[in-house]
Amino acid sequence: MAAWIDLNSDLGEGRGRWTLGDDSAMLDIVSSANVACGFHAGDPSIMRAICQSAALRGVCIGAHVSYDDLAGFGRRFIDVKSDELRDIVTYQIGALDAFARAAGTRVGYVKPHGALYNAIVDNDAQAEAVAAGVAQFGPLPMVGLAQSRGLEIARAAGLRIVDEAFADRAYNRDGTLVSRQIDGAILTDPDEIAVRAVRMVIDGQVESIDGATIEIHPSTICTHGDTPGSVAIAVAVRQALLAAGIEIRPFAHVAQ
Amino acid sequence: MAAWIDLNSDLGEGRGRWTLGDDSAMLDIVSSANVACGFHAGDPSIMRAICQSAALRGVCIGAHVSYDDLAGFGRRFIDVKSDELRDIVTYQIGALDAFARAAGTRVGYVKPHGALYNAIVDNDAQAEAVAAGVAQFGPLPMVGLAQSRGLEIARAAGLRIVDEAFADRAYNRDGTLVSRQIDGAILTDPDEIAVRAVRMVIDGQVESIDGATIEIHPSTICTHGDTPGSVAIAVAVRQALLAAGIEIRPFAHVAQ
Amino acid sequence: MAAWIDLNSDLGEGRGRWTLGDDSAMLDIVSSANVACGFHAGDPSIMRAICQSAALRGVCIGAHVSYDDLAGFGRRFIDVKSDELRDIVTYQIGALDAFARAAGTRVGYVKPHGALYNAIVDNDAQAEAVAAGVAQFGPLPMVGLAQSRGLEIARAAGLRIVDEAFADRAYNRDGTLVSRQIDGAILTDPDEIAVRAVRMVIDGQVESIDGATIEIHPSTICTHGDTPGSVAIAVAVRQALLAAGIEIRPFAHVAQ
Amino acid sequence: MAAWIDLNSDLGEGRGRWTLGDDSAMLDIVSSANVACGFHAGDPSIMRAICQSAALRGVCIGAHVSYDDLAGFGRRFIDVKSDELRDIVTYQIGALDAFARAAGTRVGYVKPHGALYNAIVDNDAQAEAVAAGVAQFGPLPMVGLAQSRGLEIARAAGLRIVDEAFADRAYNRDGTLVSRQIDGAILTDPDEIAVRAVRMVIDGQVESIDGATIEIHPSTICTHGDTPGSVAIAVAVRQALLAAGIEIRPFAHVAQ
Repeated sequence: MAAWIDLNSDLGEGRGRWTLGDDSAMLDIVSSANVACGFHAGDPSIMRAICQSAALRGVCIGAHVSYDDLAGFGRRFIDVKSDELRDIVTYQIGALDAFARAAGTRVGYVKPHGALYNAIVDNDAQAEAVAAGVAQFGPLPMVGLAQSRGLEIARAAGLRIVDEAFADRAYNRDGTLVSRQIDGAILTDPDEIAVRAVRMVIDGQVESIDGATIEIHPSTICTHGDTPGSVAIAVAVRQALLAAGIEIRPFAHVAQ
Repeated sequence: MAAWIDLNSDLGEGRGRWTLGDDSAMLDIVSSANVACGFHAGDPSIMRAICQSAALRGVCIGAHVSYDDLAGFGRRFIDVKSDELRDIVTYQIGALDAFARAAGTRVGYVKPHGALYNAIVDNDAQAEAVAAGVAQFGPLPMVGLAQSRGLEIARAAGLRIVDEAFADRAYNRDGTLVSRQIDGAILTDPDEIAVRAVRMVIDGQVESIDGATIEIHPSTICTHGDTPGSVAIAVAVRQALLAAGIEIRPFAHVAQ
Repeated sequence: MAAWIDLNSDLGEGRGRWTLGDDSAMLDIVSSANVACGFHAGDPSIMRAICQSAALRGVCIGAHVSYDDLAGFGRRFIDVKSDELRDIVTYQIGALDAFARAAGTRVGYVKPHGALYNAIVDNDAQAEAVAAGVAQFGPLPMVGLAQSRGLEIARAAGLRIVDEAFADRAYNRDGTLVSRQIDGAILTDPDEIAVRAVRMVIDGQVESIDGATIEIHPSTICTHGDTPGSVAIAVAVRQALLAAGIEIRPFAHVAQ
Repeated sequence: MAAWIDLNSDLGEGRGRWTLGDDSAMLDIVSSANVACGFHAGDPSIMRAICQSAALRGVCIGAHVSYDDLAGFGRRFIDVKSDELRDIVTYQIGALDAFARAAGTRVGYVKPHGALYNAIVDNDAQAEAVAAGVAQFGPLPMVGLAQSRGLEIARAAGLRIVDEAFADRAYNRDGTLVSRQIDGAILTDPDEIAVRAVRMVIDGQVESIDGATIEIHPSTICTHGDTPGSVAIAVAVRQALLAAGIEIRPFAHVAQ
């Protein structure tokens, strides 16, 4: 049984005039903040503000790296060349790290965003490119889908890997996520989601969509903050974990 | 009399499919490379390649920071808010520094590009914002128009300032550059330009467009590489300086 | 006394994943829709959707043309060359017109957005460039600040000009808007704003911030929809106008 | 035997400060100009200039529509949603048509660019989206790979389709192009390419890379202008066609 778990959330996903999600509320809930780096969302001033707030609260800052796709919010697979993917990953981490250091800390990890997160589950070339882009910056931990091939590739590239689970998503028997197109793929009841999160951490288990018990040993659980409903779910998850005696803390070292 | 001078040039100003200038030739001529950071030109893969080449040759890497203006190549004044300008400066330096470190060195200085370079000569708010953006990253030296108000502001903000001169541009009596609209503003004869460069370094003087002798004590002289003709000029300047016994070396420390 | 007035509003100012304002509510209030064309906000799918909704309701579609500045939402003055400004204006109108025609109508007018709207009040070169960009597309009416120099220039370029007034903004004695930095520049009481709108239309007058009565003869009044409060103001203005027997209709012909 | 053929080329592929190819030379060679619309290359001022030059020479203007991918020059497959793809196609045609009309003509056809051109050969959803985007603008002819599924889909959507051939590319037996990764995929000898072009038009045949004779009945042949060598090839193709008594003229009506 794990004595602790990390909660992470995607933050800083506004852009200029546009806002998205309740970053301030989520920074009080999570222990790790995946900060958009300007390629799918975010801009320099948003990045700076999030880094300052995260540093003040001891929340670990992660680079939420993406394809170069503001028009599509990074949600579209792009068949980008390996060298270019590697370099846009390094670029984004470097840009964010400047604000992390200005806030007295450092970027603590990397999490690919959106379509890139999904792509590296089975696209080896892109998984290798992302890992190389991280390594080019420095050997930061990399968050990915628990037990996925993308993480194996990152590990082989010398990175510490971090298994992520989704308490509000249905799982297939093989540990992959049920597609959002399928009924029941997304859970919405805060209590049910909170119970699942606790079971993941305490028992290392989650029930698949067809009723099987599958093993999962996440180091971090993803929570969302885009809607009022999602913030409430995140609060419920946090409270249930604490009530179960589980510490919520970053999986990565928070430099100070 | 100075025993040395730095030669700098704007490099990495292609973008994706588009190329511009002969970066490779210029890296053999200059001691400092102003590397575009993706806001007026450049992209992550170009930045990486230039940093590697520069590091191999001992050329100092500078962040050539710009307004966010790919459409205009950073040549249009933008009335951007101070906070935003400060943060886009920090972002660009951070992104470039990731590649400099991957190449075994660091960003050694900052030089504003194009319209931003000109703006801070007399726009105090923007000059303060740029200096704050540099300071937010770390106290790097900042290159600007010799004896300009923008440099004074950067100095007041705690930055080391670096006076730049242009051997191929005509000067007004007050030390400002003659506008490109005016006949005679741009010199094109390699020998004449080379002689001016040597005089700037040896005597600390340049003749103004109307025949007066004005004082100038540059630490760095700008050379261009966008056209075959400009590379030839840069070669002539370099050779004349060396022939005059002047060492060509970076003004900033090249981290290794 | 005018028997009618046009109400216009800035619509379609989301972008990809980001939303802004309540376009649907505003399309039931206004008679003319200033549609963002992708340069400060908006994207092709948003443009298509707004054009369809506007056409269904008989709302006139206007091209809300902007500087090329998504990062700054078109709110920053950019010192763009005349030729380039002219051409980005034409480009934006053409792109929007494709969706207007797909919806069975046409772009009926042009209104510069944000910093460009303000710039052409006193920047003759940019005013001429905008007018030339409109004329290059076709002789559409152009909306601008009532009695401003920018409109005079557009008229001289052969365009029909349309005086716009702001019922929720304070006016200086010379008919210019009081800067947003000044206390009292923005009115927020729906009833007061509605009364001002009616007076503008019926009497051709508005009280300046220092108590003088100034003449104004708008053909269109701007309303906003970015916040719940602003929609309520727009509703109040509409109802007060109708109650005063004033018809609300487009100033421009709505092609069908 | 065909009495005529169209020659087309990709033009206007610079962007702001960056130039690419010799547009002026190519406009004297081709009968149809595929004009970049700002999504993979091109900008409003380049579009305007090309439209003016093309109109003066009676060259037909085509919209060279692309994924939204300036960073990748439109050469990377993007898994964009159908609605969004349809609308970006319409947007680009509309923008270009504004400049075509300003030059006294109209956009005469549409040709997908780069990765989108290749995608619609076997991605039915994207082929349907592109055809819908064209139809949304108006029923323009669409150029694509001769006898490809993408063209069948466009035809089913009510568009006139235009078979394109590549005289400088090797063909597989099934009429697809040999991948650029394979030796011999690209022909470089001007005479050989010119002979192939003439045979395509006169005999409706081309030899596949493995020596078979395959049928092809192009209405247009693509030529390139990015390098001095490619312009020379285009000249050779043009001269050989004329020498064989073949008229070179647009496949689409050039509105005037």
